[in-house]
Amino acid sequence: MFKKILIANRGEIAVRIIRACREMGISTVAVYSEADATALHTMLADEAVCIGPSNSKDSYLNIENIISATVLKGAEAIHPGFGFMAESSRFASICNECNIKFIGPESEVIDLMGDKAKAKDFMRNSGVRVIPGFEGDIKNEEEALAIAKDIGFPIMIKASNGGGGKGIRIVKSEEELKGAYNLAKAEAEACFGDSSLYIEKFIENPHHIEVQILADEKGNVIHLGERECSIQRKNQKVLEESPSPFISEDLRKELGIMAVRAAKAAKYTNAGTIEFLVDGKGIPYFMEMNTRIQVEHPVTEMVTGVDIVKEQINIAYGRELSFKQEDIKIKGHAIECRINAEDPNNDYRPCPGKIQELLIPGGPGIRIDSAIYQDYTIPPFYDSMLAKLIVYGRNREEAIMKMKRALSEFVIGGIKNNIELQFEILCREDFIKGIYDTSFLNRK
Amino acid sequence: MFKKILIANRGEIAVRIIRACREMGISTVAVYSEADATALHTMLADEAVCIGPSNSKDSYLNIENIISATVLKGAEAIHPGFGFMAESSRFASICNECNIKFIGPESEVIDLMGDKAKAKDFMRNSGVRVIPGFEGDIKNEEEALAIAKDIGFPIMIKASNGGGGKGIRIVKSEEELKGAYNLAKAEAEACFGDSSLYIEKFIENPHHIEVQILADEKGNVIHLGERECSIQRKNQKVLEESPSPFISEDLRKELGIMAVRAAKAAKYTNAGTIEFLVDGKGIPYFMEMNTRIQVEHPVTEMVTGVDIVKEQINIAYGRELSFKQEDIKIKGHAIECRINAEDPNNDYRPCPGKIQELLIPGGPGIRIDSAIYQDYTIPPFYDSMLAKLIVYGRNREEAIMKMKRALSEFVIGGIKNNIELQFEILCREDFIKGIYDTSFLNRK
Repeated sequence: MFKKILIANRGEIAVRIIRACREMGISTVAVYSEADATALHTMLADEAVCIGPSNSKDSYLNIENIISATVLKGAEAIHPGFGFMAESSRFASICNECNIKFIGPESEVIDLMGDKAKAKDFMRNSGVRVIPGFEGDIKNEEEALAIAKDIGFPIMIKASNGGGGKGIRIVKSEEELKGAYNLAKAEAEACFGDSSLYIEKFIENPHHIEVQILADEKGNVIHLGERECSIQRKNQKVLEESPSPFISEDLRKELGIMAVRAAKAAKYTNAGTIEFLVDGKGIPYFMEMNTRIQVEHPVTEMVTGVDIVKEQINIAYGRELSFKQEDIKIKGHAIECRINAEDPNNDYRPCPGKIQELLIPGGPGIRIDSAIYQDYTIPPFYDSMLAKLIVYGRNREEAIMKMKRALSEFVIGGIKNNIELQFEILCREDFIKGIYDTSFLNRK
Repeated sequence: MFKKILIANRGEIAVRIIRACREMGISTVAVYSEADATALHTMLADEAVCIGPSNSKDSYLNIENIISATVLKGAEAIHPGFGFMAESSRFASICNECNIKFIGPESEVIDLMGDKAKAKDFMRNSGVRVIPGFEGDIKNEEEALAIAKDIGFPIMIKASNGGGGKGIRIVKSEEELKGAYNLAKAEAEACFGDSSLYIEKFIENPHHIEVQILADEKGNVIHLGERECSIQRKNQKVLEESPSPFISEDLRKELGIMAVRAAKAAKYTNAGTIEFLVDGKGIPYFMEMNTRIQVEHPVTEMVTGVDIVKEQINIAYGRELSFKQEDIKIKGHAIECRINAEDPNNDYRPCPGKIQELLIPGGPGIRIDSAIYQDYTIPPFYDSMLAKLIVYGRNREEAIMKMKRALSEFVIGGIKNNIELQFEILCREDFIKGIYDTSFLNRK
């Protein structure tokens, strides 16, 4: 096994990785920015190296300094966590050149999945259902209509070269199409000098459901079931659970099969997540693949008993998966609430500051992944997540009661946070019934 | 279900019970002494009543005040936790008279099991193996020798009326018996005015192994496997695990059968624990029955998935057990370390004081049952336990690594504690191999 691993990250995920390493008897090297000298990951690791100033680009995104620290400390592998360098194919390939094992997939796979359009094409060609769409030069209204009818209404129409949701038009019927097409085309021409349009099936209030996979370097791929991630604000997940209360046993099987197929097609290795949009009728469409550990991985760990971070390390070391698909049994129910330093009443504005009082919930079925402590000052440079509160119950009802109980005792004094918002989510009838989609927090 | 329960206890077990109630939708009333106005249980409960001055006898042992608080707040049941009133048959019977449900067995059963000699007789007559012994008037050396040979050496000989281990003599052979008998008899006569002697088989360095049982009020009794509790200092458990690394599958079955037989014979109801001494050859002897929840119940919860406190409440409410013996599967391995405010280098002297710094371990497989927080001052009036750190691993090896990892991050600043001692225990080769008995901490 590796003797020493450098963790190229900060916050709770760095702490999570340090814990896995320690339980495996592997030494750890933390890297930290000037703002993070008193951060928990800096203190918990066996060794720590300052890699630059507080701004991420000068430290946690500074490839040269991270590689130097790795060489200096003699670490054999780097775990990138999520965010920062985790999905940088360049970083992965530099690691490779420097003879440092990057704990994640090959850089080519990161590249492929990083280009969302390419990834969709790849999946379509690999037999994985992708949202039906057409991209290219559309001659006239009639052709647009034929495409739209082929895809089926409602559809979404936008400039191929448009970005950031700009100029997206939702078209619900044939009657609306003509006007929308002409406007979109004119706008594309005017704004981007290119009238190419992109027409895609519009999925109203979809479910965001993702499947965790593990793939070793010997070609074995298994999945660990799904996570329901539909509760989002501004495209950021807020609460996740596993299994999803929405999907049927058949859909669960289909998702698993599609996820494994996708990973095998991409010759994927290590832990990864296939994200699907699922429409109201329960039809799943591949959205993207995340080539790294996810924030919400603990809910999967709770219901499968698999330690995903340890498996990442085992896989990176070249070990074969020690279990087969049929060994994976989903048992009980897990929920994760992301506790953020933010003001839900002020557009979720981040609220860094000093934690003046801290009471972390405990007792049976409670897991806390965090990097905070009392008197710690949250720096303003990084993301606002303070802690992940994860609960496990024998069934969904018990898990909900447990989460409500845990939230009710959680105290983080001195900074605004979303503990109350999370509690409110758990009290809502549509949540309790398990009837919710990505519009949940807007429908409040 | 009960609408409101009063918790007649303090510290982590009171918090544990409040948590169970909250997850069941039951309101909670805490009671607290003057020293405990800022204790966690006082703050976490829905309501709290001060029941007297700091000394236990004036508050937590003050039956009148506890009953008054219950009536005043309209609670329907009392959970006594462990210690304090938990094994007071008088308290249980007063609850009964006041129409308050005592969450535990009937007072008659508490009485029977509270008298350790009576309990042994009862078990012997009920077909449960008890340490062979003879109590009464022994005429002469020859009779003593016959008794001793019948029991088998080594034996223990002492005055029937002696207490506190006074005048206990260990006799290993026939040759030694004569002298020991005469001395013991003379001493018994001189010290207690009664020459009655008690001869019992002496079990050298036994294992302390206990079996958790659950018995509903409809006559169903099941067991939840065993706990290995041999790591003790001054007869106080320090670290517990489940399953025991020492016992065979056959012995496990025998212990379960004996425990269920014992509970059924006593018409026991609610949660209880049958404690056994197991000798080096793996023969178990009934030692005593604890008629309450135990400190170390979490290790059983971790490997069975059963929430014992919730079951206690369900049973007290009159519900039938929702599972059968065959539904109970022991899975994985759990270890509990008791973290105490004490000085292991100074005869475990309690060290109350203010917690100036606190870092509680987290991450997968870690459970913390405690009632402490940063800036909390541990009062000197009660016991020294600060927290129970419980870990769960897929096997014993993983559980040990996890516990070492968790202990290595646990910081309780400002007061002396036994975190380091616990870490040392986990590093000892005999512990790692699972070869240890009650002499473990003395053999250090």
